Amino acid sequence: MKQTAYVAGVGMTPFGNAMDKTLNELAASSILDAIKDAGITKEDLNAAYMGNAAGGVITGQVCVPGQVALRSMGISKIPVVNIENACATSATAFQQACTMVTLGVYDVVLVCGYEKLYHEDKNKTFSVFTGAIDVTQTEAIAARLKARNDLIGESLDMSGAGSSRSIFIDIYATWAREHMHLYGTTREQLAAVSAKNSVHGSLNPKSQFQNVVSVEEVLSAREIVSPLTLPMCAPIGDGAASVIVVSERMAKKLGKKRCIRVNASNLHSGWDAEEGETPMVTTAVTELYEQAGLGAEDLNCVELHDASAISEIKYYEYLGLCETGAGGDYVLSGASSLGGKVPVNTSGGLMRKGHPIGATGAAQIVELVMQLRGEAGKRQVSGARVALAENGGGYIGTDAAALVLSILSKEE
Amino acid sequence: MKQTAYVAGVGMTPFGNAMDKTLNELAASSILDAIKDAGITKEDLNAAYMGNAAGGVITGQVCVPGQVALRSMGISKIPVVNIENACATSATAFQQACTMVTLGVYDVVLVCGYEKLYHEDKNKTFSVFTGAIDVTQTEAIAARLKARNDLIGESLDMSGAGSSRSIFIDIYATWAREHMHLYGTTREQLAAVSAKNSVHGSLNPKSQFQNVVSVEEVLSAREIVSPLTLPMCAPIGDGAASVIVVSERMAKKLGKKRCIRVNASNLHSGWDAEEGETPMVTTAVTELYEQAGLGAEDLNCVELHDASAISEIKYYEYLGLCETGAGGDYVLSGASSLGGKVPVNTSGGLMRKGHPIGATGAAQIVELVMQLRGEAGKRQVSGARVALAENGGGYIGTDAAALVLSILSKEE
Repeated sequence: MKQTAYVAGVGMTPFGNAMDKTLNELAASSILDAIKDAGITKEDLNAAYMGNAAGGVITGQVCVPGQVALRSMGISKIPVVNIENACATSATAFQQACTMVTLGVYDVVLVCGYEKLYHEDKNKTFSVFTGAIDVTQTEAIAARLKARNDLIGESLDMSGAGSSRSIFIDIYATWAREHMHLYGTTREQLAAVSAKNSVHGSLNPKSQFQNVVSVEEVLSAREIVSPLTLPMCAPIGDGAASVIVVSERMAKKLGKKRCIRVNASNLHSGWDAEEGETPMVTTAVTELYEQAGLGAEDLNCVELHDASAISEIKYYEYLGLCETGAGGDYVLSGASSLGGKVPVNTSGGLMRKGHPIGATGAAQIVELVMQLRGEAGKRQVSGARVALAENGGGYIGTDAAALVLSILSKEE
Repeated sequence: MKQTAYVAGVGMTPFGNAMDKTLNELAASSILDAIKDAGITKEDLNAAYMGNAAGGVITGQVCVPGQVALRSMGISKIPVVNIENACATSATAFQQACTMVTLGVYDVVLVCGYEKLYHEDKNKTFSVFTGAIDVTQTEAIAARLKARNDLIGESLDMSGAGSSRSIFIDIYATWAREHMHLYGTTREQLAAVSAKNSVHGSLNPKSQFQNVVSVEEVLSAREIVSPLTLPMCAPIGDGAASVIVVSERMAKKLGKKRCIRVNASNLHSGWDAEEGETPMVTTAVTELYEQAGLGAEDLNCVELHDASAISEIKYYEYLGLCETGAGGDYVLSGASSLGGKVPVNTSGGLMRKGHPIGATGAAQIVELVMQLRGEAGKRQVSGARVALAENGGGYIGTDAAALVLSILSKEE
């Protein structure tokens, strides 16, 4: 919906392997940074929307993970809502918080996404991803993926799905094969997305991967499911990101200079789209631009859900950055690179910054706020005024189970 | 907050052991009943707030349980928010949904609480309850409980907590001992709560337990942690409950006759209360009555969170039905029985109707709506016009991690 909310502060931990830290420590670190950044105190918070997806599986903390994390750092007495929406968990929390602030329920709301995925038992980690689809329908989903591959003369061996890799890799590989079949997209174009994001990630001190990889290195890396190699997929990771959402009144009080406007933020769910039906994402994008009174041509930078290289290519098209089918050419044109027309995933994206699933949506907002404030350092997009975040989660029917789109802007 | 929302339809499954049904089947059954009861269709829904706490542990369905359950019955394309707040999960979902409707975001919202707790491996079931406290602080919590027992000359053996029983029983037993020590509350009074609720539950076809138990039977039943015997504690159970929340505009369209007004609904979280500090529940109750413009004297029936017999006694006092310390006498007076001044837990409450944790909050609303409509059959409270629901969840510091209070009323 159209929003009148502001982001007053952001904070995040480095993403990566945090086996030496507890889930609570990760959350607390990002929350304290965001509070400090906003120039408020813990006592100013009216409510908290806490996003975590895997805590029950990885740490055994179910039911009230948010209250537990907040108490560990001395925050209590405020309403706490624990939200879960797969990889779109903390974007959903952000969307709900913005809505509450826009409608005048609260003045200052904390949004925190926090996640630990690394575990000595890799099966536990992969079970989180399997749990992001319908666990009673894994065979039906596998059959449908195989049928889609058959249709384009490909075969899909899913024997390692859920054990040696997340089942989502099989979904993304199918997307990639279809895109290559339909539009002539190449492996080199997929690799170019990963290489581009590795350059961006190398400029972000919080990124899980700090090294730059070339197109050749991406292509020659270990193949997970053809055509996807390891660097074409988001890694497992731990981390937390927090955002302080405030009302216009509070933004004025805090000084609007560093506050970033949330123009629109909406939440959608996918379904079993029929042949020829307008896909959910198209409806969601159209609605978002209408609500914000802005369009693709107004965007200066974008953080999108590059869970795999093909995801980024498809979202160039969905967001209207280029025509349908032209996503592969778009990345090669340099338009989505730093210095290009609309730099995409300046943070490094999910593939390089990392993807602790419950934290990803909030981390996208953190990056965009830094860009719009002009505080993004070596990866700053010059003169950025309007930015878009796209965060997808889970898989239902033929689509994402949850999709959150947001437009943020720097006011004059 | 003060709400202007209406409940247009309710539905629930029988509570109990549903090993023969999937989590999705339970959810779908209650949702279809609620939709039919409201006189709407699936296509009328604008959004869904889905409450589940144990799915990740019991069924492996994490991340997007709501979308999965809804898709299984052909509901999609609407925004879905998955909410978790321990035993207050679906009351939190209800509170959020009412707020969205009150503020004009949606006209028709589905709230569903759905849960499966029965599992061949009992450790899995108990781990859900352990996960409703801070799992990194179980030793500290145990130490504090023991210290509280020491203070009143009692000793607490927690060796079976989390394996042969939920750790919450140790918390409730401590509450009971303190109440007995401070106010002279007796085992017979505790047993009277269970006996009273068993009469109510026997009149509710959806109750897990259909039999009536006497005070003597409750007292002579197996002791879990002294003074609590088995029938003084809520059982493990499976089930689902759904509520359709609509705007005033939609209520008028549907015909206001069967729509029940939500006057106020608020969400609070507990903390480490210091000696002499006003407890969270007192603040929450005072706020609720102010928002609704109503008081304890206006209530005709109450559903409260009787996870144990002592919980019900303490909540008589917190809600202002009687003076502090007088809860034991209150139950003996018959005031909280059917036919009494303010019948409490006419559904049978958590102890007799059952307590599938994510479903409990919504099930309380189902009962109150039936009472306010005059559709509660043999357990009807004559002339009920104003009702209150209290749903607590988890444990943090010295208090519930989440508490949702709601007041509903029948309009003229």
